[in-house]
Amino acid sequence: MSVIISGRNPVIEAIRAGRKIEEIYLQERTNKDVIKLAREKLIPYVWMTKQEITKMLGKANQGIGAKVADYEYGSIENLLEPSDHKRVVVMLDGVQDPQNLGAIMRSCDAFEVDAIIIPKNRSVHLNATVAKVSTGAIEYVPVVEVVNLHQTIRKLKNVGYWVAGTDMNGDRTIHDIPIDADLVIVIGSEGDGMSRIVRDNCDFIATIPMKGHVNSLNASVSAALILYDIFHRKGE
Amino acid sequence: MSVIISGRNPVIEAIRAGRKIEEIYLQERTNKDVIKLAREKLIPYVWMTKQEITKMLGKANQGIGAKVADYEYGSIENLLEPSDHKRVVVMLDGVQDPQNLGAIMRSCDAFEVDAIIIPKNRSVHLNATVAKVSTGAIEYVPVVEVVNLHQTIRKLKNVGYWVAGTDMNGDRTIHDIPIDADLVIVIGSEGDGMSRIVRDNCDFIATIPMKGHVNSLNASVSAALILYDIFHRKGE
Repeated sequence: MSVIISGRNPVIEAIRAGRKIEEIYLQERTNKDVIKLAREKLIPYVWMTKQEITKMLGKANQGIGAKVADYEYGSIENLLEPSDHKRVVVMLDGVQDPQNLGAIMRSCDAFEVDAIIIPKNRSVHLNATVAKVSTGAIEYVPVVEVVNLHQTIRKLKNVGYWVAGTDMNGDRTIHDIPIDADLVIVIGSEGDGMSRIVRDNCDFIATIPMKGHVNSLNASVSAALILYDIFHRKGE
Repeated sequence: MSVIISGRNPVIEAIRAGRKIEEIYLQERTNKDVIKLAREKLIPYVWMTKQEITKMLGKANQGIGAKVADYEYGSIENLLEPSDHKRVVVMLDGVQDPQNLGAIMRSCDAFEVDAIIIPKNRSVHLNATVAKVSTGAIEYVPVVEVVNLHQTIRKLKNVGYWVAGTDMNGDRTIHDIPIDADLVIVIGSEGDGMSRIVRDNCDFIATIPMKGHVNSLNASVSAALILYDIFHRKGE
């Protein structure tokens, strides 16, 4: 199966990461630098008019697209095996918005997250929108799809992970999340936060200190603040 | 002029903040708690079927909407007058995406930002989408619209603000932004970053430390990381 993606960074990162690409689509007189990359990897490319490319890719395509091999999910087994470093895994409990998943992927790439775990149901999945919003981070951040989040939490706990839930009513701040262990950071859904059973299975709940009237942040913003804080405290 | 907004939080915060509301629209058997709020403020409300409310508000309306007074822009003069605290002002240089402006507003509310400055041209403006994504933060964060960003920077510098640009090629990290002065934090556009003339007028350029392959973050994520760092270092 293949999927058609659009945008400069998603296409460039797909090439760089060695994703199987059937064809690259280029609007005439744009993205000439991409041809060099494509030729090096022997990837065919097609010139198109602005009208043709917009018909194929929709608006805001930056004059470039590609037909690439479908995005595949990683395996939970990799996360259960011993590792040479302390891992950080993000678990998304009901995040539905592809914009949020794409933005979270960028943060995961930037702050050295090992993987994202999503549930099969009630969740956004990997698709062309996520690829675009991720600006190519989708090539580098493994996504694991599981049937049951709380059973997955148990498996991860059994091999030593600490599981940090996140919401407004935590028992500590994000700065108190231990960084000397493998970690799972759970991010709840945009509307309802974490599900009850997932929350109950967390080792603790961490809160982002804040003031103001609305008292909540966008899901991808919350994720980034926590991931950056861990990354920064690890000495990066 | 009025605008029709949708979603629980945007409507509830509009009521709480005292925004002029012509009418509230409620889907039958939903959002009954809002009626109490509406009655206290003598705001009329109308029951509608699910079909009617979806036709009026579009999908993902949470069964609630309102016709409210149009969003108005604040004045730059307020930011030029002396203040009893060190201010933080966010300047958006070419941010086009209402999702980003809405998410940035939530972060500004949470981390005590005094105002957002946007340019009249090449920028997203206040509208129903921004209101919805802001989950009500639009009621609390003043937005100032100016004709010319770099002239505005000069005005702000003249009264003592430090102006921090942000991109990947800074001369310091975000942790080195001084917090004992009035501050302007400039966030560039999603695709191209800050414009040349704005960048050249900044006192310094701050970078968010990161690793990874893609080396950029969503604009609302970048804004949040910087604003939280300042908020946190101020002792919150």
